[in-house]
Amino acid sequence: MSELIINTVATIKPLGKEAMAQAQGRQDMLTKPQGSLGRLEQLSVQLAGVQCKPVPQIKDKAIITMAGDHGVVAEKVGNWPQEVTAQMVYNFLNGGAGINVIARQVDARVIVVDMGVATELESNSQLLSRKVASGTQNIAVGPAMTEDQALKAVEAGIEIVTEEVTKGLDIVGTGDMGIGNTTPSAAICAVMTGRSVIEVTGRGTGLTDEQLAHKVEVIKRALQVNSPDPKKPLDVLAKVGGFEIGGLAGVMLGAAAHHIPVVIDGFISGAAALIATALAPVLKDYLIAAHVSVEQGHKFLLKHMGLKPLLNLDMRLGEGTGAALGIFLAETSAKILAEMATFTEAGVSEKEG
Amino acid sequence: MSELIINTVATIKPLGKEAMAQAQGRQDMLTKPQGSLGRLEQLSVQLAGVQCKPVPQIKDKAIITMAGDHGVVAEKVGNWPQEVTAQMVYNFLNGGAGINVIARQVDARVIVVDMGVATELESNSQLLSRKVASGTQNIAVGPAMTEDQALKAVEAGIEIVTEEVTKGLDIVGTGDMGIGNTTPSAAICAVMTGRSVIEVTGRGTGLTDEQLAHKVEVIKRALQVNSPDPKKPLDVLAKVGGFEIGGLAGVMLGAAAHHIPVVIDGFISGAAALIATALAPVLKDYLIAAHVSVEQGHKFLLKHMGLKPLLNLDMRLGEGTGAALGIFLAETSAKILAEMATFTEAGVSEKEG
Repeated sequence: MSELIINTVATIKPLGKEAMAQAQGRQDMLTKPQGSLGRLEQLSVQLAGVQCKPVPQIKDKAIITMAGDHGVVAEKVGNWPQEVTAQMVYNFLNGGAGINVIARQVDARVIVVDMGVATELESNSQLLSRKVASGTQNIAVGPAMTEDQALKAVEAGIEIVTEEVTKGLDIVGTGDMGIGNTTPSAAICAVMTGRSVIEVTGRGTGLTDEQLAHKVEVIKRALQVNSPDPKKPLDVLAKVGGFEIGGLAGVMLGAAAHHIPVVIDGFISGAAALIATALAPVLKDYLIAAHVSVEQGHKFLLKHMGLKPLLNLDMRLGEGTGAALGIFLAETSAKILAEMATFTEAGVSEKEG
Repeated sequence: MSELIINTVATIKPLGKEAMAQAQGRQDMLTKPQGSLGRLEQLSVQLAGVQCKPVPQIKDKAIITMAGDHGVVAEKVGNWPQEVTAQMVYNFLNGGAGINVIARQVDARVIVVDMGVATELESNSQLLSRKVASGTQNIAVGPAMTEDQALKAVEAGIEIVTEEVTKGLDIVGTGDMGIGNTTPSAAICAVMTGRSVIEVTGRGTGLTDEQLAHKVEVIKRALQVNSPDPKKPLDVLAKVGGFEIGGLAGVMLGAAAHHIPVVIDGFISGAAALIATALAPVLKDYLIAAHVSVEQGHKFLLKHMGLKPLLNLDMRLGEGTGAALGIFLAETSAKILAEMATFTEAGVSEKEG
């Protein structure tokens, strides 16, 4: 463990109960039947607890989309060439990807990070380069990365989000890009939730039955070869994880340490959350699960962490696309709490009896 | 039947198949695995069909929130005093209600209509007055309104949305306000779906078990006394409906006649949709079900119409709050289709094999 990670974990405190009670009190005075805005009301109270403010504020919004490559693609676990990771990074930088469109729609910045893309990327003022290595090693034959690399990945995430916090960040969403990254995510999910590999392994970007069976086989082999220890989350990350997964775990820890709510995206962000919440169990209360992905392991890992997704739109793109939608709901919930009139203010009669 | 309603129904055509095929073709060339944006992709294709444009445009957005009172409150079917309908209309006009906050968040106008509030409302430049009568009659003892009033209510909805279309409307959401209006909605739902009253009757703004049993009893009596004929939707509206429900049915018909997508809100909008789709079955394809309400009949009426809700956030406020969130998703889906780069444009490799 590094000092930065230890200190960050130690800084994450339980949610602000006083702010939550005040937020709930205000919700109950607003001109609507109590509870009638359902999960939007609960979300506003959670945000109050995270920010320790009775009326939370969501103005400065960002998605941190981290990219990394995976040596396990050598085992042919997917249908897309590895070069797509780098090509999609350029697409993010040019504003043409799904995450760019949805982030513009919700007025969130997209922060693109090279955590370990296999290709050498052209330098770009919009690209944060925190490349730990040019892709992980093949987890089917050995560990994905060294322990030191795992620490570096998590630290990068903490540092990047901390830098954003100093600029005034109010909420962060997590996103990923990495050809092959449902494979390490499924491996992490199996180890951390205790579910079988077959239960948590999905079709990624569109595998046939035969290809899916092969992917399950590869993940089983990765777990046998590496014996990751679920009690040591950074050991799991090093043995069967990915650089972008480690980076996202760091983003979550760093954000929570600064009272910033984290909207997590799909399966890959979920795997990162499994690592991060194992390091800091109280982090769970800072997380907002944007959606449940089609990728079948996602629902299990959310359940394991006690997180209930806001949306179920049959999405499975990653990049932070689901998280961006979740940020919209979070901002909406905060505005409801801040801007709706109370019964007294509006001169509306309350419920009888 | 009136000429306006007959002509409007006759004007609603099947969705534009050519535009839908082109939209789907473009979706499949965008830089993401095909189908990976799930329901957002399907939604963009539906919008293309409704607008008959390969790349649908959602810029000018409005929620039409219609208010009306219900004579059946004499039977004590709810916990809120009738005066709240008028008080909430003022709250809408002052921008302090839930719908105002969410509509601002999605940049949609709120058009407030008095379809039949019991109180005489102060005139206001922001309020459309189409008052059919000062509240309906008590459906537990006779029809809610005359046939002529039912026609007037539906016509008002058609005229209001048509006026908006001439100003450039791209999408409309429906909303309601009316103390007691889950009672006529449940009555309509039972008649039109063939389900039992007990199945489709919910707790509205918060009834106890005893109060719920009484509400079921009142609705059963309303159906016995009035014998509404499910084959005659305007008869159902007149006998057990409401002025805002008729108005919203008119909004749906008028919008579809002008190729404007309609995002429907919760249980009351759903009851209006049952009337409107019975008049014009093809209208169904123009409707987007924003969410499924906590009000238990809602899921049954959506199923009856073959509509799948986008959201499930435990909401039950009405006003158009769910519809406003649905408008956000619709606009997002259209922007994805319009703004994402294709594989060729972005120089991204496609799936292998």
